[in-house]
Amino acid sequence: MDVAEFRRRGREMVDYVADYLENLEQRPVYPDVEPGYLRSLIPTEAPLEPETYEDIMKDVERVVMPGVTHWHSPYFYAYFPAASSYPAMLADMLCGAIGCIGFSWAASPACTELETVMLDWLGKMLQLPECFIAGTQGHGGGVIQSTASEATLMSLLAARCKAIRWVLASNPEKSEAEILSKLVAYTSDQFCATLGTTPSCAFDHITELGPICNKENMWMHIDAAYAGSAFICPEFRHLLNGVEFADSFNFNAHKWLLINFDCSAMWVKKRSDIIGAFKMEPLYLKHENQESGLVTDYRHWQIPLGRRFRSLKMWFVFRMYGLKGLQAHIRKQVGLAKEFESLVRADKRFEICAEVIMGLVCFRLKGSNELNQTLLKRITKSREIHLVPCQLSGRFVLRFAICSRSTESHHIQQAWRHITQLTFELLQEPAH
Amino acid sequence: MDVAEFRRRGREMVDYVADYLENLEQRPVYPDVEPGYLRSLIPTEAPLEPETYEDIMKDVERVVMPGVTHWHSPYFYAYFPAASSYPAMLADMLCGAIGCIGFSWAASPACTELETVMLDWLGKMLQLPECFIAGTQGHGGGVIQSTASEATLMSLLAARCKAIRWVLASNPEKSEAEILSKLVAYTSDQFCATLGTTPSCAFDHITELGPICNKENMWMHIDAAYAGSAFICPEFRHLLNGVEFADSFNFNAHKWLLINFDCSAMWVKKRSDIIGAFKMEPLYLKHENQESGLVTDYRHWQIPLGRRFRSLKMWFVFRMYGLKGLQAHIRKQVGLAKEFESLVRADKRFEICAEVIMGLVCFRLKGSNELNQTLLKRITKSREIHLVPCQLSGRFVLRFAICSRSTESHHIQQAWRHITQLTFELLQEPAH
Repeated sequence: MDVAEFRRRGREMVDYVADYLENLEQRPVYPDVEPGYLRSLIPTEAPLEPETYEDIMKDVERVVMPGVTHWHSPYFYAYFPAASSYPAMLADMLCGAIGCIGFSWAASPACTELETVMLDWLGKMLQLPECFIAGTQGHGGGVIQSTASEATLMSLLAARCKAIRWVLASNPEKSEAEILSKLVAYTSDQFCATLGTTPSCAFDHITELGPICNKENMWMHIDAAYAGSAFICPEFRHLLNGVEFADSFNFNAHKWLLINFDCSAMWVKKRSDIIGAFKMEPLYLKHENQESGLVTDYRHWQIPLGRRFRSLKMWFVFRMYGLKGLQAHIRKQVGLAKEFESLVRADKRFEICAEVIMGLVCFRLKGSNELNQTLLKRITKSREIHLVPCQLSGRFVLRFAICSRSTESHHIQQAWRHITQLTFELLQEPAH
Repeated sequence: MDVAEFRRRGREMVDYVADYLENLEQRPVYPDVEPGYLRSLIPTEAPLEPETYEDIMKDVERVVMPGVTHWHSPYFYAYFPAASSYPAMLADMLCGAIGCIGFSWAASPACTELETVMLDWLGKMLQLPECFIAGTQGHGGGVIQSTASEATLMSLLAARCKAIRWVLASNPEKSEAEILSKLVAYTSDQFCATLGTTPSCAFDHITELGPICNKENMWMHIDAAYAGSAFICPEFRHLLNGVEFADSFNFNAHKWLLINFDCSAMWVKKRSDIIGAFKMEPLYLKHENQESGLVTDYRHWQIPLGRRFRSLKMWFVFRMYGLKGLQAHIRKQVGLAKEFESLVRADKRFEICAEVIMGLVCFRLKGSNELNQTLLKRITKSREIHLVPCQLSGRFVLRFAICSRSTESHHIQQAWRHITQLTFELLQEPAH
């Protein structure tokens, strides 16, 4: 494919993407395929000779689309949102074209520097304490990780490294293995200190946990993977109080802040803590400027060596929406969750199972777990809406998460009509 | 930005990307900026109100481009290639639009199934032993990791988990910490068994290492991050002999196989080894089909939970190039490296420092390390071509890696004229 054909195919793809998203409502949100469906639809080996682009695009509809769970359908209420917006998609095209691998400052200074400044912008939107902001003089700062899992792992490894060095300083005779065997990681049943758990969007009391961690010289990592985006709204910011006690903090801007996956924002109070654990300096990665205090080599902040120019997505989205636009997005989705909550509360057959604070409603039919499992099976099978369950204190609960940017009030109303229709049919059956 | 504006801006971005790549030769390959340059060019906080798209695109040229190291310039010879092709970029646009987070089969069956089949396609291109191919009955199979670092970490964790279980089976009284303290990872000075090291593209003798690992019941991981792509050519395949002894094998298709970052292909002989180490099953991720042998939940194969629909890039590239087109790309770049090698060998002032097997030439001026450091500094400062050094047996060596898809013979000739011109000036100075 030469550049002229790319211009043509690129325009076609832009239209394909626009058509897909504009008409997504008309596709069933959950696919009707059996495991292994795809293998039989395509050859067992790659072609020897080139094929035509037309054939590939035909196969996108024939092979791929029938097996897609449409996360951006307005009828998708499962898991948590996967952020998506047009400015982020445009920025990602640019990211692909520049195609730098920004493991060091020199590997592409703009890639590193825009990331540091964008994490400062975002940190300020969240009103993070000054110690997490890089600025020109700070000791802290932010980094884009791929996912919250990686941010948590990095925190754990940095904490482990720091603890071992701390013990070794006063007990140089001890072996690392001996110290390691005594280290303890305290977690809840959702792992670390969490703001907005996955099952029910519950909040740990970090203003209580934090001082204990600080007093006991323990590393405190706070994960706000889903809820973190909402802290850009003043009315939710109080839920982040206590972050000043943390050593590291992370949330997934790729969940709820309109920045396409992957963009997990992580801040540390002391860059030296995280860099110290992973510094790696072969000659081919050294560069003249790295001794300057202004230089960040992000490869020391993460598990992978390579990294994409992901801050472009943040820059495009922050500027195209503005803080007010982003706040409006959060508020709209919380409003839709509240609307769904009201519908559930108005129906005596149902109960709300956890306080609705953000865009997630946990609810169930009053009755047995089996009854709720059957209801969910029928919802899934109908393929009109899609949601997943959770377990809360031994009870089987349905999660209704506001996910798609295109979900409006009438979708919520229709989803509820659908759920109550299936409920009506279920409760009429003799077994119930 | 509504869908109508996205259609318009999308077309503009396609043209911007096409123009950028078409005219890349005219931009200096290495940026002329000082650390911290970017922060002063943009505001210290995100805007409250939305800005216009025109302003953002103006800032791409004003703020970003002056700080970009252009990895796809035909004058970029640093590190290793970062793969890039038009079909991969088109597929990535589609990936962004579908925007599924394929952590489980149910989260988007097509995302998981296309990945398994694409890794089979690629495994067959490399003529991997049957035990690494998933097929419909296999015990092995492939997965896309983000980077080789993550593949190595996954292997290490899986090996550790397997070793601990193995010791515990016959010594149930031992603690995990005790066993852990006795575990040993054998590495070379480039880490694990490597085919194509980063400094000089050297090859370990895996046909010698493999039988020892197997006999001693050790996990063998082979990393062919750069060189792996070349094994699709029969004339290079012999370098992969011995892979049958490995438990896991990995290479970066995003380096040399025209698939944009990230796409690190990893295969394991026994899926159960890698899954066993990481299985994680909260209720909200369970789905009805997961007990089927045909179902893969890739979240068990990797550190992150979330993952993009990256196999689309593989599918587009394999089909648009065909195996022959991909082989031609590898052969062309190896040919360019051989051409550069000949130029170096014909100049008595220089020496070749490692056998040129693929697309990397390691060379130096006969003389001191300081002399070569000075030469490289001048090359970097001139910004006409870009390369990085390595250290081989204590000697400072220049690496010349064929990177960009757009590099042609005349670029190689021009690069060599430039190097010899700077050498001429350097050697004329009294100090030398």
